[in-house]
Amino acid sequence: MPDLRRDPVTGRWVIIATDRILRPQDLLPPQPPRGPASGLCPFCPGEERLTPREILAHRPAGGEPNSPGWQVRVIPNKFPALQVEGTLDREGIGLFDRMNGIGAHEVILETPDHKETLADLPPARLEGVLRAFRDRITDLKRDMRFRYIAVFKNHGAPAGATLDHSHSQLIALPVIPPLPLAELQGCRQHYRDKERCIYCDVIKQEQREAARVVVDNPAFTCLTPYAARFPFEMCILPKHHAKSFEDSDDGLLEWCARILSETLRRMDRVLARPAYNLVLHNAPLHDRRTPFYHWHLEIAPRLTQMAAFEWGTGCHVNPIAPEESAKFLREAEI
Amino acid sequence: MPDLRRDPVTGRWVIIATDRILRPQDLLPPQPPRGPASGLCPFCPGEERLTPREILAHRPAGGEPNSPGWQVRVIPNKFPALQVEGTLDREGIGLFDRMNGIGAHEVILETPDHKETLADLPPARLEGVLRAFRDRITDLKRDMRFRYIAVFKNHGAPAGATLDHSHSQLIALPVIPPLPLAELQGCRQHYRDKERCIYCDVIKQEQREAARVVVDNPAFTCLTPYAARFPFEMCILPKHHAKSFEDSDDGLLEWCARILSETLRRMDRVLARPAYNLVLHNAPLHDRRTPFYHWHLEIAPRLTQMAAFEWGTGCHVNPIAPEESAKFLREAEI
Repeated sequence: MPDLRRDPVTGRWVIIATDRILRPQDLLPPQPPRGPASGLCPFCPGEERLTPREILAHRPAGGEPNSPGWQVRVIPNKFPALQVEGTLDREGIGLFDRMNGIGAHEVILETPDHKETLADLPPARLEGVLRAFRDRITDLKRDMRFRYIAVFKNHGAPAGATLDHSHSQLIALPVIPPLPLAELQGCRQHYRDKERCIYCDVIKQEQREAARVVVDNPAFTCLTPYAARFPFEMCILPKHHAKSFEDSDDGLLEWCARILSETLRRMDRVLARPAYNLVLHNAPLHDRRTPFYHWHLEIAPRLTQMAAFEWGTGCHVNPIAPEESAKFLREAEI
Repeated sequence: MPDLRRDPVTGRWVIIATDRILRPQDLLPPQPPRGPASGLCPFCPGEERLTPREILAHRPAGGEPNSPGWQVRVIPNKFPALQVEGTLDREGIGLFDRMNGIGAHEVILETPDHKETLADLPPARLEGVLRAFRDRITDLKRDMRFRYIAVFKNHGAPAGATLDHSHSQLIALPVIPPLPLAELQGCRQHYRDKERCIYCDVIKQEQREAARVVVDNPAFTCLTPYAARFPFEMCILPKHHAKSFEDSDDGLLEWCARILSETLRRMDRVLARPAYNLVLHNAPLHDRRTPFYHWHLEIAPRLTQMAAFEWGTGCHVNPIAPEESAKFLREAEI
């Protein structure tokens, strides 16, 4: 059973996933392959037996679960960071606080084609991926043990992907992690001061200034943030205030898929198909006191390395101004 | 001139170091070499002309500045993240806040020997490095523009080092970065509640439980933190309460050098000389309201990769329990 432990000084929760690795040697490069060594891809159609049984799948032409014919397929992670069965058993041990590492850890297979990337998908299929995100959040939200659901994607080995076949992941947690919490606190403070959503205010100012807008459509805007931590970091926000991604209807997800597709293709063009991370920032679950939050997607190509300064201080050095990044992305021919 | 920009939601400051890179191509691998391409090491004795003029050096047998004969040498970073000359010119632009990227960025050359690592140094020479840290902080502290000084080390390319020759860095900032700020807030809260230092409390509990103690001497203890974010993450703390590293006398630095040396050698033994990061966590400057802070060193070998989940949520997954890490380190034969 993994452990969730709270740092007594900063309050941040850490997942101690002790089931995964036993000896120091297992941590040294080269790390053991996580999929079968033979070259078989467990995420390819026809290999469904290599994965845990599916939770959800889109099969436009019908067909049996755990068989080929799917366009999007959601499965439990075979090496989960958290375990879904059990009770939290919160406890204090002197200064320290812990609970059982309860949570859900799922994998969203975005395409049956081993070589296709998210940027290659036509927007209608990308919309299917976003619908799978929404439907899994909506389902997991009914489990009252969970407080936050993170949906994220590692594309390419430098961004942390351990398997090539295009996929995203979802982790449902019984705690709210530090960065969403910091965003919530910032939103709450602004709402208290001004009775407005800070993200709505940012969108308005960015639309006026225009220098950091990458691409725009009637429902969404893609910006390079004013205080971007990474080169070519981007943020996709719904223009109409909305705290929770899972409240999006199909019409909104269609616009979201369109802007995400264009954003990824512009990034691929300017940066020669880089490794990247994508994260959904969403409101915590079951919290009716958060009308002031505003969901968004954050995307960052992995071009620079996190080193001691960033890790030790939380302060980032970005070698390119977001206005410059936005200009390159805007002017890319796609 | 670099820019310091504040994220309007989370309040975190980011350094936009626009002088460094101009085109997207410059960010793509392979990155341009930062030292001379010829194989000359600018940090080796005899090559002093390749670096900016030194700020401090230890020359036990005497000798001219910027000539060989040094054991420790401190120079300005040739590619500084912040610029030392100028005024802050704080301003607001609508929702956004910025100031000029004013600060100091120095490099501490830890040994004249190109092949020697910090772990190879005899403790007496390691003490010389720690004295250089202390003396540079004491000097920079007189500059009232600075609020925080970060001292850190990237060892090995996977940990972000761009030059092989063993060195640390120092960045003086006009703001307090997010992680030290979070630690300060945690310390302040505990002090308000209990009138005790939380790090002192942690040390006492860890000494009793013993499971996470790696090595101990009369003045310092080295622990794997209860909620360690990384495998084999370690924390070296002075046992006697002290908020600021730079208040350490030579006697204390001697004990610090001894425990740091042993810690690094144990880590090298268990993990086959890994890449690692080291960061000094110190009290902010000029803040008399922080008697409750407790300085410490954090060390983490770079064995796992930061990916979207960690980056997007601030929540870490550690695949090995700190009790296990501590046991391997304790039992290593050095």
